[in-house]
Amino acid sequence: MNAPDLTRPPLTIRRISLDTGRENVAVISRRSRALRPEVFRGFSRVELRINSKVLLATLMITDDDAMIGPDEVGLSEPAFRRFNEPVGSAVSVTPARSPASLDAVRAKIQGHTLSAAEITAIVDDLAHFRYSDMEIAAFLISAARFTTTDELLALVGAMASVGTKLTWDTPIVVDKHCIGGIPGNRTTMIVVPIVAAHGLMIPKTSSRAITSPAGTADTMELLARVDLDVEQMKQVVHACGGCLVWGGHVNLSPADDILISVERPLSLDTPEQMVASIMSKKLAAGSTRLLIDFPVGPSAKVTSANEAMRLRKLFEFVGDHFGISVEVVTTDGRQPIGRGIGPVLEARDVMAVLGNKPGAPADLREKSLRLAAHLLEYDPKLRGGTGYARAKELLDSGAALKKMQQIIDAQGPSPCPAELGSYAADVLAAADGVVNGIDCLRINRLARSAGAPVAKGAGIDLFKKIGDRVEKGEPLYRVYASDRSEFDLALAAAQAESGFAINHHTPADVDLVS
Amino acid sequence: MNAPDLTRPPLTIRRISLDTGRENVAVISRRSRALRPEVFRGFSRVELRINSKVLLATLMITDDDAMIGPDEVGLSEPAFRRFNEPVGSAVSVTPARSPASLDAVRAKIQGHTLSAAEITAIVDDLAHFRYSDMEIAAFLISAARFTTTDELLALVGAMASVGTKLTWDTPIVVDKHCIGGIPGNRTTMIVVPIVAAHGLMIPKTSSRAITSPAGTADTMELLARVDLDVEQMKQVVHACGGCLVWGGHVNLSPADDILISVERPLSLDTPEQMVASIMSKKLAAGSTRLLIDFPVGPSAKVTSANEAMRLRKLFEFVGDHFGISVEVVTTDGRQPIGRGIGPVLEARDVMAVLGNKPGAPADLREKSLRLAAHLLEYDPKLRGGTGYARAKELLDSGAALKKMQQIIDAQGPSPCPAELGSYAADVLAAADGVVNGIDCLRINRLARSAGAPVAKGAGIDLFKKIGDRVEKGEPLYRVYASDRSEFDLALAAAQAESGFAINHHTPADVDLVS
Repeated sequence: MNAPDLTRPPLTIRRISLDTGRENVAVISRRSRALRPEVFRGFSRVELRINSKVLLATLMITDDDAMIGPDEVGLSEPAFRRFNEPVGSAVSVTPARSPASLDAVRAKIQGHTLSAAEITAIVDDLAHFRYSDMEIAAFLISAARFTTTDELLALVGAMASVGTKLTWDTPIVVDKHCIGGIPGNRTTMIVVPIVAAHGLMIPKTSSRAITSPAGTADTMELLARVDLDVEQMKQVVHACGGCLVWGGHVNLSPADDILISVERPLSLDTPEQMVASIMSKKLAAGSTRLLIDFPVGPSAKVTSANEAMRLRKLFEFVGDHFGISVEVVTTDGRQPIGRGIGPVLEARDVMAVLGNKPGAPADLREKSLRLAAHLLEYDPKLRGGTGYARAKELLDSGAALKKMQQIIDAQGPSPCPAELGSYAADVLAAADGVVNGIDCLRINRLARSAGAPVAKGAGIDLFKKIGDRVEKGEPLYRVYASDRSEFDLALAAAQAESGFAINHHTPADVDLVS
Repeated sequence: MNAPDLTRPPLTIRRISLDTGRENVAVISRRSRALRPEVFRGFSRVELRINSKVLLATLMITDDDAMIGPDEVGLSEPAFRRFNEPVGSAVSVTPARSPASLDAVRAKIQGHTLSAAEITAIVDDLAHFRYSDMEIAAFLISAARFTTTDELLALVGAMASVGTKLTWDTPIVVDKHCIGGIPGNRTTMIVVPIVAAHGLMIPKTSSRAITSPAGTADTMELLARVDLDVEQMKQVVHACGGCLVWGGHVNLSPADDILISVERPLSLDTPEQMVASIMSKKLAAGSTRLLIDFPVGPSAKVTSANEAMRLRKLFEFVGDHFGISVEVVTTDGRQPIGRGIGPVLEARDVMAVLGNKPGAPADLREKSLRLAAHLLEYDPKLRGGTGYARAKELLDSGAALKKMQQIIDAQGPSPCPAELGSYAADVLAAADGVVNGIDCLRINRLARSAGAPVAKGAGIDLFKKIGDRVEKGEPLYRVYASDRSEFDLALAAAQAESGFAINHHTPADVDLVS
């Protein structure tokens, strides 16, 4: 009795210019020939079917025949793209039941643990857009309450198995990942060319900024094209031994992208979800050696050594299970790395380090060298303990810069002009003293409100870092924006609260990479 | 820095014929003058503001100027209605942050208990449509995991306080509620006229069917108008001492309606949420004496005496706290009550009982009398133990029927024709034996697939009940439908699995009302 009602006439597909993000949306007329719209309300779910092809969508109802007539069903942009059938095709539209895997989610809500088969079914339905927003939220929140280690392993395995699975013809495929939160922390763009110049394979995919003023992909985009598909990425890696591309077109762990799109608005952030997200992507990417950077600081994502330890163990446990050698380093996350925050400014810092320019940010150089050193030690041919010296040699000799240029050429020319925002003003110290702290969250927010990362030239250029002595009225940093109203807002906010703590203590020294 | 960006030009409101149900939806152009749509994705949240009036909405983006131009913002039907500003009004549109109360939801997800103030803030935001679907799901699921008794009391109080709060000029205001799940269980339409005929006040609001083939409001609608607003309802109660109206226009506990709209698609159903839903509505309705009917049976909502006990204690606890005298009766929920299932058939049964017609269903009559007896005992002037006799007297004498007629006249004429579906066929016994069980879930589904409650004349008319002897080929029930394809589907499903268990045991006897 739950079979589709095939005796009703099919509707013809029409495309509606509505970008509804992740959610599939279908529109029918209140006088539809194929459905009794009285039984529907807005945001019910319907099933569209052509032969064996099925799409689940959230329903909206219109009274406007110009939008959708009684014989039509309208598909929003993402639904139209995913269903991939031409306008005018005949499609059956029936009420949809929830995906069967939702029973497991309900059990999880009640406190049961899930089997690997149940988790695999959930991830499969997620990745194929069969869950509504609410249903995704239901899964995430039930899992946020508790996730057993067995559940976590099943989740990582299932997430890595849907979507692209890359394999490489060498046993040592290195990768690095930073859990984020630190402005200006663009070490990846220095580490990748060093490691590739040495001869280890490092096929790096990165994200665009989600809540920060720049991601590696946003910054790299100023130097080269980053929206490569899988085949194009493989060509670059085979030619250069490494790449710096955006993960968006490579489709590694698509379920993760979907989960993140709900975690973000709900600000859900549990260790297990972080580990599942990162490890599923690395597993799908074919990485075998992974270095993870945990910045620790009062305004970083990880605020204490205990928290870092727990998270490290979780990464190691999952890595061991899947045959990925995971190494976690805790780094100084008390302040931004480098000087620039925002894509253009960060690209400037990266190229200054790679080019051994005078005035290149020493902390960005030093951190990148230390991370690269860890990765180079994965090379069995390198004598133990010489990774740092080798990294420094590759950077100082210009080999890393040359490799970066090769990667840029292979990926293709950047589509973006690398211009700084035309509005700029300095934010000044309110008193004499020593910089004792820089609030990373605050600096991130200021750079975002100035327009970064959408406005590539917007952001913040730091003149002072922790330990620097400042005089009242001396500039702390410069705010850049490309848009007048964003500039006014960001500057006013920075002047109200700069994010700098200035007093007369001398800050404690912290080792950069543990 | 999170202040609205007032330096951007406002947009003008346009109305879009899209019924998006509970969710507020706003549409802007990808080339919008007031927003940088690049920073948005579909299903981001935006804040619309005119002076101090604010609406939160989920955003969709269009490339079609004919739908929404760069100077416009489109509001879906519910958003337009709720914002209540004319087409063409200038409105500022800015990115919306989540409601502040969502921090408490996040704490709850992490396992914290919430204060009364936090719960009140959540309910206030819910009732004012400030939560997205996902956010509502987040709250429900965090609460489904555990809800303390203090949290439950705070929830009931907060839910009852938003929306209409009815007060009556008498200390004894009786009410009844059935937790549902039993087909044909239309006792309310018999109990209300008996109790009102006696002289106790019983201002009854009922729901339409959500997952069953008929609600009291759907059935009553065949006899009288039910979509009364608060003032009209009060007039009926003052004139008749009781009413039988749909709760939808009375706006008791609007937060409950919103929670239910998410609980339903997720099939969330915890004791605490059931208690919060029912008790908040009764408190808002001004009820002081409440009788709750728990049908217990293998396919009922409550399947065991232990479960019934736990739920009863929870209702009593909340009732005591808010000064509502709650009495719970467990009733026989092993099979449907009466013969008809579906609005027209159920209205027929109700009127047969009220009219003392020969052949009126004895079980529906008996159960209604027993429930009415419990309610009549709330009258201090009635001698203890005489409630049943008094109820029977009011029914047998025709006083209850007369009262029903008075209520019908006061509420106004029914807008619906009371015609049975024109397609009908009998479902036959597959073997000789005795009816040992009737699956309530199955019967509900069959009646729904036949078209009930939307098709008022669709449903099932039972010829056999538990304990009846049947011969192979004898009709068990008749399926009615108004639509050919629904008829075919329902009949095929019924023939595949009738919902009747027939064997050679004699079923155990169960007392009707405990």
